[in-house]
Amino acid sequence: MQAIDRARPLRVGVAGLGRLGRRHAQNLAYRVPGATLAAACSPLEADLAWAREALPAARLYGEYADLLADQAVDAVWLVTPSALHAGQIVQALEAGKHVFCEKPLSLDVAECERVVNVSRRHAGRQVTIGFMRRFDPSYQDAYAKVQAGAIGRPFLVRSQTCDLNDPEGFFVRFAPTSGGIFLDCTVHDIDVARWLLGKPRATRVYAAGAIALHEGLRESGDVDNGVAICEFEGGRLAMFYASRTMAHGNDTSSEVIGTAGALAIGRIPRANRVDVYDATGVRSVCTPTFFDRFEEAFLIEAQAFVAEVAARKAGDAQKGSLGATLEDALEATRIGQALRESLHTGAAVTL
Amino acid sequence: MQAIDRARPLRVGVAGLGRLGRRHAQNLAYRVPGATLAAACSPLEADLAWAREALPAARLYGEYADLLADQAVDAVWLVTPSALHAGQIVQALEAGKHVFCEKPLSLDVAECERVVNVSRRHAGRQVTIGFMRRFDPSYQDAYAKVQAGAIGRPFLVRSQTCDLNDPEGFFVRFAPTSGGIFLDCTVHDIDVARWLLGKPRATRVYAAGAIALHEGLRESGDVDNGVAICEFEGGRLAMFYASRTMAHGNDTSSEVIGTAGALAIGRIPRANRVDVYDATGVRSVCTPTFFDRFEEAFLIEAQAFVAEVAARKAGDAQKGSLGATLEDALEATRIGQALRESLHTGAAVTL
Amino acid sequence: MQAIDRARPLRVGVAGLGRLGRRHAQNLAYRVPGATLAAACSPLEADLAWAREALPAARLYGEYADLLADQAVDAVWLVTPSALHAGQIVQALEAGKHVFCEKPLSLDVAECERVVNVSRRHAGRQVTIGFMRRFDPSYQDAYAKVQAGAIGRPFLVRSQTCDLNDPEGFFVRFAPTSGGIFLDCTVHDIDVARWLLGKPRATRVYAAGAIALHEGLRESGDVDNGVAICEFEGGRLAMFYASRTMAHGNDTSSEVIGTAGALAIGRIPRANRVDVYDATGVRSVCTPTFFDRFEEAFLIEAQAFVAEVAARKAGDAQKGSLGATLEDALEATRIGQALRESLHTGAAVTL
Amino acid sequence: MQAIDRARPLRVGVAGLGRLGRRHAQNLAYRVPGATLAAACSPLEADLAWAREALPAARLYGEYADLLADQAVDAVWLVTPSALHAGQIVQALEAGKHVFCEKPLSLDVAECERVVNVSRRHAGRQVTIGFMRRFDPSYQDAYAKVQAGAIGRPFLVRSQTCDLNDPEGFFVRFAPTSGGIFLDCTVHDIDVARWLLGKPRATRVYAAGAIALHEGLRESGDVDNGVAICEFEGGRLAMFYASRTMAHGNDTSSEVIGTAGALAIGRIPRANRVDVYDATGVRSVCTPTFFDRFEEAFLIEAQAFVAEVAARKAGDAQKGSLGATLEDALEATRIGQALRESLHTGAAVTL
Repeated sequence: MQAIDRARPLRVGVAGLGRLGRRHAQNLAYRVPGATLAAACSPLEADLAWAREALPAARLYGEYADLLADQAVDAVWLVTPSALHAGQIVQALEAGKHVFCEKPLSLDVAECERVVNVSRRHAGRQVTIGFMRRFDPSYQDAYAKVQAGAIGRPFLVRSQTCDLNDPEGFFVRFAPTSGGIFLDCTVHDIDVARWLLGKPRATRVYAAGAIALHEGLRESGDVDNGVAICEFEGGRLAMFYASRTMAHGNDTSSEVIGTAGALAIGRIPRANRVDVYDATGVRSVCTPTFFDRFEEAFLIEAQAFVAEVAARKAGDAQKGSLGATLEDALEATRIGQALRESLHTGAAVTL
Repeated sequence: MQAIDRARPLRVGVAGLGRLGRRHAQNLAYRVPGATLAAACSPLEADLAWAREALPAARLYGEYADLLADQAVDAVWLVTPSALHAGQIVQALEAGKHVFCEKPLSLDVAECERVVNVSRRHAGRQVTIGFMRRFDPSYQDAYAKVQAGAIGRPFLVRSQTCDLNDPEGFFVRFAPTSGGIFLDCTVHDIDVARWLLGKPRATRVYAAGAIALHEGLRESGDVDNGVAICEFEGGRLAMFYASRTMAHGNDTSSEVIGTAGALAIGRIPRANRVDVYDATGVRSVCTPTFFDRFEEAFLIEAQAFVAEVAARKAGDAQKGSLGATLEDALEATRIGQALRESLHTGAAVTL
Repeated sequence: MQAIDRARPLRVGVAGLGRLGRRHAQNLAYRVPGATLAAACSPLEADLAWAREALPAARLYGEYADLLADQAVDAVWLVTPSALHAGQIVQALEAGKHVFCEKPLSLDVAECERVVNVSRRHAGRQVTIGFMRRFDPSYQDAYAKVQAGAIGRPFLVRSQTCDLNDPEGFFVRFAPTSGGIFLDCTVHDIDVARWLLGKPRATRVYAAGAIALHEGLRESGDVDNGVAICEFEGGRLAMFYASRTMAHGNDTSSEVIGTAGALAIGRIPRANRVDVYDATGVRSVCTPTFFDRFEEAFLIEAQAFVAEVAARKAGDAQKGSLGATLEDALEATRIGQALRESLHTGAAVTL
Repeated sequence: MQAIDRARPLRVGVAGLGRLGRRHAQNLAYRVPGATLAAACSPLEADLAWAREALPAARLYGEYADLLADQAVDAVWLVTPSALHAGQIVQALEAGKHVFCEKPLSLDVAECERVVNVSRRHAGRQVTIGFMRRFDPSYQDAYAKVQAGAIGRPFLVRSQTCDLNDPEGFFVRFAPTSGGIFLDCTVHDIDVARWLLGKPRATRVYAAGAIALHEGLRESGDVDNGVAICEFEGGRLAMFYASRTMAHGNDTSSEVIGTAGALAIGRIPRANRVDVYDATGVRSVCTPTFFDRFEEAFLIEAQAFVAEVAARKAGDAQKGSLGATLEDALEATRIGQALRESLHTGAAVTL
């Protein structure tokens, strides 16, 4: 973050002020050196009321178009519904903004490809898709160790995204539009696997699933527990597991196995450094939600985006983005869609 | 072990005195109350010489037929090459012996079925196939907790058999006859999964693999790292991983996930209760081989076999065998062969 | 942090810009909502040069008196040499400032008492001594659990402060003025023990020590490994361990044991959530220094100070400070001095 | 165990058939190659009735004198009340037997010395005091690593013996004769510390304690939680903790810290390799009693005794006993008594 210019901060406008949008906005407003939260927009009055209180320095808009028209905004930060992401990225690029967009880019492969194509005409702009797991310090450390050769040649990733069971079944109502468990959850593991394995292309996938608790998923063709295998070019492999029904907390973990060793990230999803000793044994309390687990990653992700834009401005040779590119996001959607197809057909899907 | 009659011990004859056979023989000779090692046989003079020294009380034979003809042998213990198992079990049953046989029953499904059929005519005899993992105290504890409802309804097992890399590649030379990684290693995980999930039948499997280090496997169509998904009737699932290339030791572990919790067995393959603190961090040294990991299981397995024969003799109601039955072994081979087929065809295999 | 008034932030002046002072200054400048870093002072030109670059918004002074004279400074933040703390706190209170001061208050009990007495005349001012461990999220969680009765009545604390061995022996040169291992390191454990046990007074202590590696300590009567027992009123106990010679990292941990359970904080000093699997076993890399271990605690400590001053201003009923008071710091010094005396005399010291 | 002669086994007679005596007797009867349980004695008819059933091959006696008179007994195994140990060892030596005796040798230092003196006249006999912890495989591994120099020069041991709280307070009734918590429990930690540190002599000790739950201990001057420091010659140190009031199980652990690293044994007292995931977090169930924790150690201890007698017989150069000698037991009692004195006087005790 050498290149950060505190005197000329990156002026960011956040679009979308739901639960996650508010977190991003507060990070950008108060915790990211080199950035200012210049503006925010939401179509909901409740969100704007919250923003007037919590983000007093930001200009507030009801319309995304107005945010884009604000010439004192350098970058937009999209935390809007997934279905809007692709279109809003294109608009932002055409308005000359840098773009950070929450995952997923789009559930539709063709639409992902369209955004990739548009972005090629705006090569001067930074575009990052928010696969925040890459910025978690433990994932960062594992990535650095892999790059340094600590495990030889990495050839297998095992990765899971498992949520604490929500008896209310929020995600059941969300199932018709979420794309299902693989596109909603496993997409993170897909990105982690490709990132740790050197960004290979997938060649074939297979998926299976079960409904353990939430029968309501059946009508949208979704499951609450899914397992998958993904084969990549060059004999590299991944195994994925996603669950909505954990009893103990949000349990997100990954392993990368190489020819000379392995690394596990987050083997026990402990909330902190406390162990409790009582009549049930010795236990670690677990992180309840991905917010708790990845709070720090969301912040570092924002700091990294600002640093990368600053590096661009300073003309630094691009060493490749740390965050997920549009191409990475396209590949994640392509694989996620193939997993979904495999779940439905019971057959392996060749890519 | 109430029913054990020390005055009239079970007289066991071991066939096969290789590395594992010797361990079984010593357990039976010195560590299994209610059993005596009455006899042993091996076609190799070196084995017999070892036995004369280590097993002075046992009658020694060069031929299996002579062991079977020994009327003072109640049970045979087969630790012979896998290809001989099926035939030797049939012969033993026909000679009126109880039979313990190391896994696998056979790599051939039809041959497994034939043995199952023969055994139906000898219902008074105990026949157990040596899936020793079931007898490991931690697996036993997990099984008991599942039976007691501690995790609700179990629906997913993840299980792995991972060996310390052998740079000599012993298993490479063994590959043409071992049946490959899934029939040699994963067969244990298949048995564990079915056992923990209530012995369901498999409906469909998919497998993939990679050669990380041992190129010599290519000509026998084998891999040194394999991953697989197995779907069972009733929406139950399993994920398997097998590896020949671990850097840290033999890492055999399993998880069973239910609707109200989960159990993990052997998450860190620590050799013992020691943690080492040094400049590299805080570490657990790992079990180097499956012998080290399952030494106790091999012993308890033998004790359980003797207790089950004693219970039969005492006319105790059969509550079902704790060890793997011939039917369990048949199903393990059936699934293992389907995994092998899937690895070779790249397609899911319906059972 | 309800009471934070972003429009009227607390204006802080940092005194002392060494390694730790710089960290505090950057936290206050960029990471503490409700605070601004208004000023900083150091007698060293190198520090001021650093500050001109890193803290462009702060007014810089060479003299502490000038910082105190700055009417646009509401609170001073003392990260100066320990010997100056007591005098500077008194001066700051007399200048009408709130005060945060790094530990220790003073190595001299009488001087601690003098500051306590002065502070009684300035009850409207917030004074906190920087025992940052209290603000670490895991220590916070343990404290909350104790308060909630999770372990019954707490009666024993075991706590340690162990540093990675420094072959250069920086602390050896520092030994003549540091007060020795118990006043320099164990003082944190003393504060933690009293805090978790309900702030009892000590009645008797005993200490012993050894020089494992750093013979240079002998002439100042210090040791590089010290152990101690502290008895408190009401049958409460503490055991302390301090070391300068760890091979694996900074290993700071504490346990609190109660009549119905126990809590351990930081049992393994893992740097992050990564486990490394290699030929040496499975290991966690450790936090190298207390900076790495307590980075977050230093920040939360600053945020809490600002929130407490804001709460005072808002007239909120004082529920007692979360941070260490002057009385806490006095008691820590009193106990630390008794430990030192016990180490030198070989006899228990009654307080 | 090279020297074991299966044809001429060591003929052992067990004295005392309480809970622990029965375990020793069964180990010797069925699980120790090279030994036979030739005889057993107990003054209680219930014990003898149990033995007739469980140990059919043993000659049974009501009087210890008759056991000693049995010429077909080579070694006696004392699991009698502690107060009888010293006298019975002397009698056994005078009858020409080898002796294994459960700890403690005696609570009286002078009596310990007397036995040591008597034993010097019977140098051909093996005498081992049952500090079984030395034979636990993890303690063995740590000892071997220390001997191999893995942690440099060891200078500090921290060791604890903590029992699951017994609401019935069996040990309260036992307190008047047990010698109190340090002589009953910590004596194991004393032996471990000396063993790992190279058998140094203690120079000074200090102890303190608290009654957390069992007020009934007050009248016998005992506590249910005790802490202690022990200084040894050569600047070596130990810290001890003993408790009768743990909520989670028997938690026996030790650490040995050296100039180049450290080893921890039994950091988490997990019952086995299972982790339970449920709404309370991720937990290990703990070993409930020392029987569960040290079952294997009791067996290996017996095997080692038999091997050492066999080695003596074979004229092997004595490399020093692995088990505790009478001199070790004397030193443990000397230190334990000093701890008790320190607890009562509140002063350090010089040895």
